[in-house]
Amino acid sequence: MSDISAVLSTLDQNLDASLERLFALLSIRSISTDPAFADECRKAGNWLVEDLKSIGFDASLRETPGHPMVVAHHDGEGPHVLFYGHYDVQPVDPLDLWEDDPFEPALKEVEPGRKIITGRGSSDDKGQLMTFVEACRAYKAVHGKLPCKISILFEGEEESGSPSLKPFLQAHAEELKADFALVCDTAMWDRETPAICVGLRGLVGEEITVKAADRDLHSGFFGGAAANPIRILSKILADIHDEDGRVTIPGFYDGVEETPDDVLESWKALGQGASEMLGPIGLSELSGEKGRTALELVWARPTAEFNGIEGGYTGEGFKTVIPAEAYAKVSFRLVHSQDPDQIRASFRKFVEERIPSDCSVEFHPHGGSPAIQLSYTSPLVTTAQTALSEEWNTQAVTIAMGGSIPIVGDFQRLLGMDSLLVGFGLSDDRIHSPNEKYELSSFHKGQRSWARILDALAKNGV
Amino acid sequence: MSDISAVLSTLDQNLDASLERLFALLSIRSISTDPAFADECRKAGNWLVEDLKSIGFDASLRETPGHPMVVAHHDGEGPHVLFYGHYDVQPVDPLDLWEDDPFEPALKEVEPGRKIITGRGSSDDKGQLMTFVEACRAYKAVHGKLPCKISILFEGEEESGSPSLKPFLQAHAEELKADFALVCDTAMWDRETPAICVGLRGLVGEEITVKAADRDLHSGFFGGAAANPIRILSKILADIHDEDGRVTIPGFYDGVEETPDDVLESWKALGQGASEMLGPIGLSELSGEKGRTALELVWARPTAEFNGIEGGYTGEGFKTVIPAEAYAKVSFRLVHSQDPDQIRASFRKFVEERIPSDCSVEFHPHGGSPAIQLSYTSPLVTTAQTALSEEWNTQAVTIAMGGSIPIVGDFQRLLGMDSLLVGFGLSDDRIHSPNEKYELSSFHKGQRSWARILDALAKNGV
Repeated sequence: MSDISAVLSTLDQNLDASLERLFALLSIRSISTDPAFADECRKAGNWLVEDLKSIGFDASLRETPGHPMVVAHHDGEGPHVLFYGHYDVQPVDPLDLWEDDPFEPALKEVEPGRKIITGRGSSDDKGQLMTFVEACRAYKAVHGKLPCKISILFEGEEESGSPSLKPFLQAHAEELKADFALVCDTAMWDRETPAICVGLRGLVGEEITVKAADRDLHSGFFGGAAANPIRILSKILADIHDEDGRVTIPGFYDGVEETPDDVLESWKALGQGASEMLGPIGLSELSGEKGRTALELVWARPTAEFNGIEGGYTGEGFKTVIPAEAYAKVSFRLVHSQDPDQIRASFRKFVEERIPSDCSVEFHPHGGSPAIQLSYTSPLVTTAQTALSEEWNTQAVTIAMGGSIPIVGDFQRLLGMDSLLVGFGLSDDRIHSPNEKYELSSFHKGQRSWARILDALAKNGV
Repeated sequence: MSDISAVLSTLDQNLDASLERLFALLSIRSISTDPAFADECRKAGNWLVEDLKSIGFDASLRETPGHPMVVAHHDGEGPHVLFYGHYDVQPVDPLDLWEDDPFEPALKEVEPGRKIITGRGSSDDKGQLMTFVEACRAYKAVHGKLPCKISILFEGEEESGSPSLKPFLQAHAEELKADFALVCDTAMWDRETPAICVGLRGLVGEEITVKAADRDLHSGFFGGAAANPIRILSKILADIHDEDGRVTIPGFYDGVEETPDDVLESWKALGQGASEMLGPIGLSELSGEKGRTALELVWARPTAEFNGIEGGYTGEGFKTVIPAEAYAKVSFRLVHSQDPDQIRASFRKFVEERIPSDCSVEFHPHGGSPAIQLSYTSPLVTTAQTALSEEWNTQAVTIAMGGSIPIVGDFQRLLGMDSLLVGFGLSDDRIHSPNEKYELSSFHKGQRSWARILDALAKNGV
């Protein structure tokens, strides 16, 4: 089998050249939400096609109703991987808040020994996707081949809701299906610690409207006799959590697994406790299930959240009214194998059981998606974890995210592929904001990380 | 002592003349809220002054910053009573909904043996106050004196918030203070059954705002870890009532008395059960304290009502936000001797005990007034009840009202006077609406009722 060290030293020697290529890509104004930049999006796509061809990929631009996709394939032994990234970027306004032109990327030394790459898309996602491309380029240069069979999908609509993505995946399932996907659109834990995201919470949204009398009532004439929908709604919401912060809806925890102790230990070691997480927003007490750490609560536990509520008189002053109805917007964050449909059904039953016989309730669904949960100990994860740990000289952590990344769910549902989420962004990269940047160390060691990961995946026959 | 039958027959003989006088008063456009009718208000006041003088009252028009008051006095043996009424009326728009000119009163036979008096103010309150004036006129005509020492106060701003009333009462407390007040601005139970209102619920209004994080949060990143003010608020509101519909705030029921059994029996006999009260508004179940009748709940029991609530995202669609704050408008209807200040303090303590240590709550008070509760068995009430029962040939009922009549509280607080609330209006009189009317039977038997009540109060030395 091949030796990775030659590939790594090649990456080191070619860092300046790789920066020139990245800057060329960053200088293209591929803002996907603004039709005025449609040509720039296409230009970015074409630039990537040509660059991938130069490495030996069979690359082409694929039309969609929106911005085109970049699809590329390269033969190889070992597993077949599909790498995903997006070449489109967020708008740059307010422009006057930028210290440098967002489309004139530059390398800046912000402190001795620390350099950053400035410009829109440097971190989200052009800089990240190029770490993978550069890894392929170096490996190919050294060995004349790639360690795995590699397919690449670069999207041009990620920052505008990915309207063309699902149809494209469905139409090209056969072509794009691989053993697993590699997604480089996430962040490291901190500047020194690489991370693999193995869990993404799912979401179920419901709007409930409780209806009582057929009109608003005067509380003087009916107070104490007629049903008050705000009271009914408050009771329902209050019943959803018990004293220990657990959700009381029957069957809610079906499919929820306990996080492995060693994972919990590794999260504790990250030092992100209640005060670290809540202090910056003016809070100090964990409000969720008792006996769980802050990170476990947002990464690995399901929740019921109340996102909005309204009923009765909400203007200035006071009105002694008993309203005809009141409503609330409720959402559930799901983990592991919780079933969105079953959660929604159980919630509706839970609510209906608490509606007085002479009142009624209306439900309005607001989307539902299951959680994404990879095994913390799958060969895919442990192989990548080892490779990352070797590159960064520190234990790579397996983390989760409280939110969701739609593409990962699409890969799982439409192509039956698990995803390995490895990224080198940092929480202070200011993606979507003025003065976006990407650490040079992220770009450089990111390239080396991918080279190690691809090599290890091949060696381990994952 | 005098014989009342001669007075009653005099009232019968003079009914047409009394109608002419009422029509004269009804034809005056004394709309107090509209400055354009200020002269008409004064004209109505002067008309009453002259009419009272013709009976022998020492009557005069008293200036206020708004419309003038009519104050009159007449010596007499027996108790000193202050009769209250108001000569101003509601606006008449929409005029096109009136079948007849609101200021051209008429007598109409609506069915064989049933006549009504049409016109704005016929029931509220010109027709009602004239029942008392006519009773005085007839008694004086027959006996050359009045059975009691009688003072009269006619207000001209009742339909526009009575801005001048309190200052006027305070400035003329000595002159206006009597043994008790007679207020003729309420309704009968039904066309055949006279009623005395002995209870008016008080009110405490409070707005609470629960504050958690110092900004709105993304429920993906903080859901399950950060406090949610909607959840905190819902729990607080839900805790206010127990399973039996009782209010759980410590000390809330201090000063609340049980309604006498015979009174409850008389209310049951009125046949206003849950279905009769709630059916018309689309409900059927009593929501208040279990084991109480519909009328007891709204007439004699205190309540906690939720009049408004708002928090988080309340627009179209869905937003997975954990809001920084949420608020609710809560009101309490008070009975008997419940103390508004103590209720407010207990409620605030109740809320504060349920606020997590890293969250906060702000209170905004919205007024507070104690309940008015007369004894069901005081000589004042029982004497009037007997007199009314004799006149109407049916047992007069003692009722209460879920709302409040400010003047009664003012008399009690400012002049230390209890009020006897007797009125002959009906729920279908359409006061404040087009086609207001007053039953001729209300006007005629109302006159006879006051003659009997005054005579009985004097005879019983109440």
